[in-house]
Amino acid sequence: MNWQRPDGRQPYQLRPVSFEQNFTRYAAGSVLAKCGDTHVLCTVSVSQGVPRFLEGSGKGWLTAEYRMLPSATQQRHDRELIKLSGRTQEIQRLIGRSLRAAIDFDILGERTLTVDADVLQADAGTRTTAITGGFVALANAISKLIQQGTLERSPLTGQIAAISVGLLSGEPFLDLDYVEDVAATVDFNVVMNQHLGIIEVQGTAESGSFTRQQLNQLMDFSEKGIQQLLIAQRQAISDWDKLQM
Amino acid sequence: MNWQRPDGRQPYQLRPVSFEQNFTRYAAGSVLAKCGDTHVLCTVSVSQGVPRFLEGSGKGWLTAEYRMLPSATQQRHDRELIKLSGRTQEIQRLIGRSLRAAIDFDILGERTLTVDADVLQADAGTRTTAITGGFVALANAISKLIQQGTLERSPLTGQIAAISVGLLSGEPFLDLDYVEDVAATVDFNVVMNQHLGIIEVQGTAESGSFTRQQLNQLMDFSEKGIQQLLIAQRQAISDWDKLQM
Amino acid sequence: MNWQRPDGRQPYQLRPVSFEQNFTRYAAGSVLAKCGDTHVLCTVSVSQGVPRFLEGSGKGWLTAEYRMLPSATQQRHDRELIKLSGRTQEIQRLIGRSLRAAIDFDILGERTLTVDADVLQADAGTRTTAITGGFVALANAISKLIQQGTLERSPLTGQIAAISVGLLSGEPFLDLDYVEDVAATVDFNVVMNQHLGIIEVQGTAESGSFTRQQLNQLMDFSEKGIQQLLIAQRQAISDWDKLQM
Amino acid sequence: MNWQRPDGRQPYQLRPVSFEQNFTRYAAGSVLAKCGDTHVLCTVSVSQGVPRFLEGSGKGWLTAEYRMLPSATQQRHDRELIKLSGRTQEIQRLIGRSLRAAIDFDILGERTLTVDADVLQADAGTRTTAITGGFVALANAISKLIQQGTLERSPLTGQIAAISVGLLSGEPFLDLDYVEDVAATVDFNVVMNQHLGIIEVQGTAESGSFTRQQLNQLMDFSEKGIQQLLIAQRQAISDWDKLQM
Amino acid sequence: MNWQRPDGRQPYQLRPVSFEQNFTRYAAGSVLAKCGDTHVLCTVSVSQGVPRFLEGSGKGWLTAEYRMLPSATQQRHDRELIKLSGRTQEIQRLIGRSLRAAIDFDILGERTLTVDADVLQADAGTRTTAITGGFVALANAISKLIQQGTLERSPLTGQIAAISVGLLSGEPFLDLDYVEDVAATVDFNVVMNQHLGIIEVQGTAESGSFTRQQLNQLMDFSEKGIQQLLIAQRQAISDWDKLQM
Amino acid sequence: MNWQRPDGRQPYQLRPVSFEQNFTRYAAGSVLAKCGDTHVLCTVSVSQGVPRFLEGSGKGWLTAEYRMLPSATQQRHDRELIKLSGRTQEIQRLIGRSLRAAIDFDILGERTLTVDADVLQADAGTRTTAITGGFVALANAISKLIQQGTLERSPLTGQIAAISVGLLSGEPFLDLDYVEDVAATVDFNVVMNQHLGIIEVQGTAESGSFTRQQLNQLMDFSEKGIQQLLIAQRQAISDWDKLQM
Repeated sequence: MNWQRPDGRQPYQLRPVSFEQNFTRYAAGSVLAKCGDTHVLCTVSVSQGVPRFLEGSGKGWLTAEYRMLPSATQQRHDRELIKLSGRTQEIQRLIGRSLRAAIDFDILGERTLTVDADVLQADAGTRTTAITGGFVALANAISKLIQQGTLERSPLTGQIAAISVGLLSGEPFLDLDYVEDVAATVDFNVVMNQHLGIIEVQGTAESGSFTRQQLNQLMDFSEKGIQQLLIAQRQAISDWDKLQM
Repeated sequence: MNWQRPDGRQPYQLRPVSFEQNFTRYAAGSVLAKCGDTHVLCTVSVSQGVPRFLEGSGKGWLTAEYRMLPSATQQRHDRELIKLSGRTQEIQRLIGRSLRAAIDFDILGERTLTVDADVLQADAGTRTTAITGGFVALANAISKLIQQGTLERSPLTGQIAAISVGLLSGEPFLDLDYVEDVAATVDFNVVMNQHLGIIEVQGTAESGSFTRQQLNQLMDFSEKGIQQLLIAQRQAISDWDKLQM
Repeated sequence: MNWQRPDGRQPYQLRPVSFEQNFTRYAAGSVLAKCGDTHVLCTVSVSQGVPRFLEGSGKGWLTAEYRMLPSATQQRHDRELIKLSGRTQEIQRLIGRSLRAAIDFDILGERTLTVDADVLQADAGTRTTAITGGFVALANAISKLIQQGTLERSPLTGQIAAISVGLLSGEPFLDLDYVEDVAATVDFNVVMNQHLGIIEVQGTAESGSFTRQQLNQLMDFSEKGIQQLLIAQRQAISDWDKLQM
Repeated sequence: MNWQRPDGRQPYQLRPVSFEQNFTRYAAGSVLAKCGDTHVLCTVSVSQGVPRFLEGSGKGWLTAEYRMLPSATQQRHDRELIKLSGRTQEIQRLIGRSLRAAIDFDILGERTLTVDADVLQADAGTRTTAITGGFVALANAISKLIQQGTLERSPLTGQIAAISVGLLSGEPFLDLDYVEDVAATVDFNVVMNQHLGIIEVQGTAESGSFTRQQLNQLMDFSEKGIQQLLIAQRQAISDWDKLQM
Repeated sequence: MNWQRPDGRQPYQLRPVSFEQNFTRYAAGSVLAKCGDTHVLCTVSVSQGVPRFLEGSGKGWLTAEYRMLPSATQQRHDRELIKLSGRTQEIQRLIGRSLRAAIDFDILGERTLTVDADVLQADAGTRTTAITGGFVALANAISKLIQQGTLERSPLTGQIAAISVGLLSGEPFLDLDYVEDVAATVDFNVVMNQHLGIIEVQGTAESGSFTRQQLNQLMDFSEKGIQQLLIAQRQAISDWDKLQM
Repeated sequence: MNWQRPDGRQPYQLRPVSFEQNFTRYAAGSVLAKCGDTHVLCTVSVSQGVPRFLEGSGKGWLTAEYRMLPSATQQRHDRELIKLSGRTQEIQRLIGRSLRAAIDFDILGERTLTVDADVLQADAGTRTTAITGGFVALANAISKLIQQGTLERSPLTGQIAAISVGLLSGEPFLDLDYVEDVAATVDFNVVMNQHLGIIEVQGTAESGSFTRQQLNQLMDFSEKGIQQLLIAQRQAISDWDKLQM
């Protein structure tokens, strides 16, 4: 029997995507990214200096932090106070790694970009929404740094987007919502650049295992989803042509 | 010489106030409260059970948590991870104390209301905005509990609002923004109920001291500000008449 | 019905106050301050250097720490180990703020004064006893620094004392003990200088609310109490005339 | 130019693999697993009871902890004391997830298996060695539980092994050592079962990106490596035929 | 050359010892114990219940906590907040172990005695003063429990005292002060009961080593010191005859 | 009635002792030390620099860390994560103190030696095995530093070994195993150098007390045990003659 999507979407169809830019005013970039009912506030802040291991190298750095507000989920969850959960740490490491793939750090110089991804509302796919929305905030921040004369030229070397895909009843479905995420037997997250070059792939069988053929189907769906996200990002970023290297 | 307000307001004039209700969808109450450029997401979540010291008493409880997103301020600040700062703890204790003054906990029964005040953008007055907006979210949550049949009648015994006021060049000014907050010699926060009964008053001389006469002026201004906030809250809460005891 | 004070005091009467100076021998100032059965060991230590934000400014700093010994209360309470409670942090911030109001930090120079207030026995009013006794220890420490030739002249710009006052059965009472503190509907703490200029006022309605008129009564009582404390401090500090600026 | 392996291995060749069973005597299973110079002590302990979310379900649980001894690496590294690093948490979550895929928890009953993977010596591939060696320790522990009569039949539903593979100079190489791991542009870890069904795949481009074709090559190499590891495991586990469901 | 004691004492002479009982009023036992300039506030609190490992055994427990106030030492030292130092933990474990040797826990019943040793002023020998003074507080607390009718008879099975002794210039000296403690090459702490039975002996060569003959001399001195302390304790405890089993 | 040793040893007989050198390859010294079923991996790592209090002194330092693997004991125990237990801290402080007694830190120069003692399997006597085995690892590390030319001559000033001894049924027994350790009424640990000079002695009466005569017997047994360990160490260290000062 086939999986019927709760919102009637086609298997390869994304949820509605939007990027509300300048959502807050003090960070260099600030985007409220929405993929369906998943809403992530992505901001990019700029500071002088770099972590110790890069001091004197002339290179910059990008780091990411990820959190969910306690009321973002259907049941309120506690804030992580004394220590971060393994899940949170995995996600913020993934966001940082993914967005660093878009930057030439020699051009950025000894500055640190901090991406804060704060999930205001969670309906699955928060990490991929954080990456995709985080890239838009990153482009906005770079744009502002150039306008201010802080940077002479853009350090952006590529465009980065991410999507989730899963197996339900053995078939692939793109951009799972919470109900689907719980039901899926395989959970997959893929990060790609503007040429559909793979930056990161993470796939887990929640029950059973999956085949090489299914891996290929999941990658095919991911490519379809990411192509649409790349277009949506470029539409949102008004000065994209100038920022691209 | 007199203080000229950066935005040209009269000394007794509030910044524009608004309450965007149902800003997120999973919490029982969710309000994006804005006082000028200070934006606080106030949510109210409901859970069964109460803290240990109330178990078996038949009474409910209300607790509050307060945080600023790292990008809320002009310079990004670090998240509080291992321990909360004294400032954060003071503020969340104040929010909890203030909103508990609006509830009859016998009527609420053994449930806990958790108010989360997450500052998305900070231009001073975040604690008072959290209280004033938190009350609107609280009313929304109570309303939903009654509609769901969880509660038979409203446990709201009063209306709560809060405002800041300060002395600049020896004169009182209402609802300080960040520039004013830094310049003020006396910093005052007042919480009142619908009868202008005082729930909490906290005043600190940042330099020098202040007189009994100035204390009276600060209280006069506070009353003016809170009267306006009480009206704005009632306008925002559509079913206010039914919720009020 | 009127409140009968457990120890038969008049409403405006303080508990017996004493300052045992040089209670320990290594700190620059060391005072065992007693307000009735509340006993607080207040010490002032001096160290070279200042916190980072003041380095190179030529200005000094004063910071305070507050703790209760576990056996100070009627039921033993646990030590705060991993993190300080909100209450403890609020109190030590208040002590620091209050005593900083007595110092000219340009005259002190780049030194840090650390006030440790350790409650040996607690019968309410520990924070105000810590401030009032802490001022005596501060004066002793300044005196020693001048005698040692470390300071040429006194950086003391004022005298600081603090008192609690509360509403019981709607009437004001000065300097509550533990039984009264629990019964009070409004809890008030006031810090003033030698001119009865207000340094800090904090008032909380534990139940219900209070009026502007009651606020005035509470302030009247506070003034009466602080006047007596100022006299007691000056009697205790033998070289007060030389220390005062 | 092609990559020359430091130890002269063929691209698809594993390092020498061995499993020293009963390395310590108190844990139910204890294996010193070696892949070349990477040595991981894998133990499996059994305790009554399960985490809260499984209580009363009749189902068991398996959890994993991973640490490196401070002297395991070429430069001594500090122990993780206050909190675990993101890397450590990611790895121990991966080990747990992977080995849970081999167990029927209804047959295990309400018991918890704890896999401890302590790296005594690290030359890359510690997480995959922990999984592959952890499976052998798991089989030993199950065997002992059956011999003791604690379990009537084996809850093992499959065999699990893991391998690393990477791209160097654009070509795939199996089972990287430390020098290779540092030089690789793509780092891949794959977990499979006895049918080469995929349990987990994690691939990261350390610089640039990789293509769908390269993904396929990496998966081909992984299959080759895992087939050899599956054989080595079965040779080590003397009573494998009885344990397999 | 021989060591000249700073205060002119004979090698086998103790510093003046005193026990100020009922120093604070809420704990069951409260003693300000002084050995020269070392002042330790020792309190004993009683609570119902025992640690988990004793629940249902009918036996009681005694535990100890030890801290120095920050201003107790010649240079102010920081409070131990996130974690206790090894030194603090060693000392509080020693105090607990030593005083448990004086109690029959079957007679105490399922109660916990908590000994808090807070050093107000430190001139070496704080741990031995805490044990010797802690025993007096313990006797006071037992006495009060019997008077209250909580206990029918005394669970005290013995008397416990402790002393430090050290080698300076190769010769033994009793009850070192701070200057001597720093200069000593061997540092020894001994805990004994009323029959001079050894409860604990801890000796460390701070430089070089010491001989069996010196060990004997150190033990001889310890016996002399403890005999005097046992007398002083008995003189302080007015109802000692009734408490002794 | 006399105690019968579980393994039939004579009262003064050690368990079999062995030192497997170069057990791991990256630390300067690495020894798997075994005393019967107690197995401790002792490694010594060398780093430039010293703790703050020694900077610029020209002197080096030695520090020790001690842990048990969770599966080392008969029942798995949890790892110490947020804070170390008092027992762990006591032991690692003892190991450090003991091995520092073997080093001339002026000859070592401003380097830090870190001794890691990780217990792989625990059958009592882990701290003494860590010291005795740690000394062998230390000698190996010094030897390597001389061969590398880092050190011109050996900073080893002595040889250090440690043993446990206990009272069972009132009689002394050497080198207790776990069953004996639990049954012993007095638990004793002694550290000595090559001349049987005492470095540290720690004795605790677990129940009752012990006499001066028993103390002497325990010391006699300790000397016997340590003489054997000193011989075993010298046999294991092939270049001992060159390392000894």
